[in-house]
Amino acid sequence: MIIIESIEEMQRAADRLRVASKRIGFVPTMGFLHEGHLDLLRLAKQRCDTSIMSIFVNPTQFAAGEDLSTYPRDFERDCRLAEAIGCDIVFAPEAEEMYPPNDSTWVQVEDVGKGLEGSVRPTHFRGVSTVVTKLFHIVRPHVAVFGQKDAQQAALIRRMTADLHFGIDIVIAPIRREPDGLAMSSRNTYLSNQERKEALALFRALEIANALFSKGERHVDTLRHAVEEEILRSGNVQLDYTAIVDPDSFLPVEGNIERKALIAVAARVGKTRLIDNLIVRNGTTQS
Amino acid sequence: MIIIESIEEMQRAADRLRVASKRIGFVPTMGFLHEGHLDLLRLAKQRCDTSIMSIFVNPTQFAAGEDLSTYPRDFERDCRLAEAIGCDIVFAPEAEEMYPPNDSTWVQVEDVGKGLEGSVRPTHFRGVSTVVTKLFHIVRPHVAVFGQKDAQQAALIRRMTADLHFGIDIVIAPIRREPDGLAMSSRNTYLSNQERKEALALFRALEIANALFSKGERHVDTLRHAVEEEILRSGNVQLDYTAIVDPDSFLPVEGNIERKALIAVAARVGKTRLIDNLIVRNGTTQS
Repeated sequence: MIIIESIEEMQRAADRLRVASKRIGFVPTMGFLHEGHLDLLRLAKQRCDTSIMSIFVNPTQFAAGEDLSTYPRDFERDCRLAEAIGCDIVFAPEAEEMYPPNDSTWVQVEDVGKGLEGSVRPTHFRGVSTVVTKLFHIVRPHVAVFGQKDAQQAALIRRMTADLHFGIDIVIAPIRREPDGLAMSSRNTYLSNQERKEALALFRALEIANALFSKGERHVDTLRHAVEEEILRSGNVQLDYTAIVDPDSFLPVEGNIERKALIAVAARVGKTRLIDNLIVRNGTTQS
Repeated sequence: MIIIESIEEMQRAADRLRVASKRIGFVPTMGFLHEGHLDLLRLAKQRCDTSIMSIFVNPTQFAAGEDLSTYPRDFERDCRLAEAIGCDIVFAPEAEEMYPPNDSTWVQVEDVGKGLEGSVRPTHFRGVSTVVTKLFHIVRPHVAVFGQKDAQQAALIRRMTADLHFGIDIVIAPIRREPDGLAMSSRNTYLSNQERKEALALFRALEIANALFSKGERHVDTLRHAVEEEILRSGNVQLDYTAIVDPDSFLPVEGNIERKALIAVAARVGKTRLIDNLIVRNGTTQS
């Protein structure tokens, strides 16, 4: 596995791979890898000749007062984990090179990025779509893999890739969970032992909605109420939002769920903000 | 020369060229070609193995009430002219494919795109940067050539290309003028014989500023005043703006011009809106 820090060097390596007709699979991450990230890498390897993972804690997707400076980092461990899966290249640029002096270009996806995370974190998705555009231009992948845990981000990247005609296949990997159901996240490391237990409320609440849906409940108000009730029962968990939306447009579903819907929840456990989601669809369910 | 209408077909052709290590030179146009466009094509051919010209009247860079529906079009003549220069591929997509259903992604360059054209036509540059991003993703060029006549657009594309790390060389071709000095533009076709004569006021005004600069005048107020006076002298020409700006940032130059500056003018002759510009620099001048 090789580590590349320079943008120009990464572009040259990608061009050489393309001239050699190698298919490039790309996994953009902010590092501090867990099994969820490694699943993305495994998918990229399955589908492509060469796998490239970027590790870059992107400043523009954090707002002032968010956890940019404390976001967990362990580059050497990340590289060991990526290499063990068979990653070919880790791309780890400096922020100063990703955002050159006088940088003033933004990629903005309207609609999909407006609600949920977009309304709680108004500049977040602009940072995500902009950095992913930069990374796509540098790594030049045929396939890029994102996780369903960040469901709105996944929908936004799919929309942006279609709109801007990137010509990149976007693959979305299912949520990887701990044995007790907690969705894996680099931010789980912030949780104390007590908070770690309380954090399960998000998964439990989604499971309750899932069970209701399986029994035939289709009305979004009933399902959302059940999720909220379960989360509010856990005294130390502060609900940010529960939303039931179309998984592609992220527009709210109203009344009864006709075909499928995404149930999303965001909450704070102590000072740690966590998100989780579940897709329900008539006939079957899928997390 | 081949003509490609489908985005996917153009992307496949570009990929084949890249696998064959061919350098792709790209000239994006809205068609109705004149010698200015053909200069861009000649430059692309000089620098690359394969030249591709797009012809696409981009709806998102016209505001309501502008001349989208009447913009001059002659696809067959354009193809004959491009082929005569040795163009390899003309890419001519449909608006419906360039802007798919639910299209909602914009590329926006702050700063450079704010003043001058950006303040008179507030959604214009958002349309330009978005369509150029799409075209870059479809044509996948190594080099792209733009004209200095649209100086602010050229600066905006340079800024966007650096910021988003497109890895494309942006080449800017000098303004091509008619023998009497009028800057070539597809919109010149709108002018009546009488207006065609009056339109020369833009070039004359820039030449007056240039002569003053050559004689040592450096103060922007004096230079701008001379330009405005010459244009206002022509009764039928309505001045939109005169601006003296830094050619890269497009921020106004204040006081004396230290090294170089771009003098830009926009005006209406009858119903036709025309722009022109000139760069002055200490030691030499260049249009």
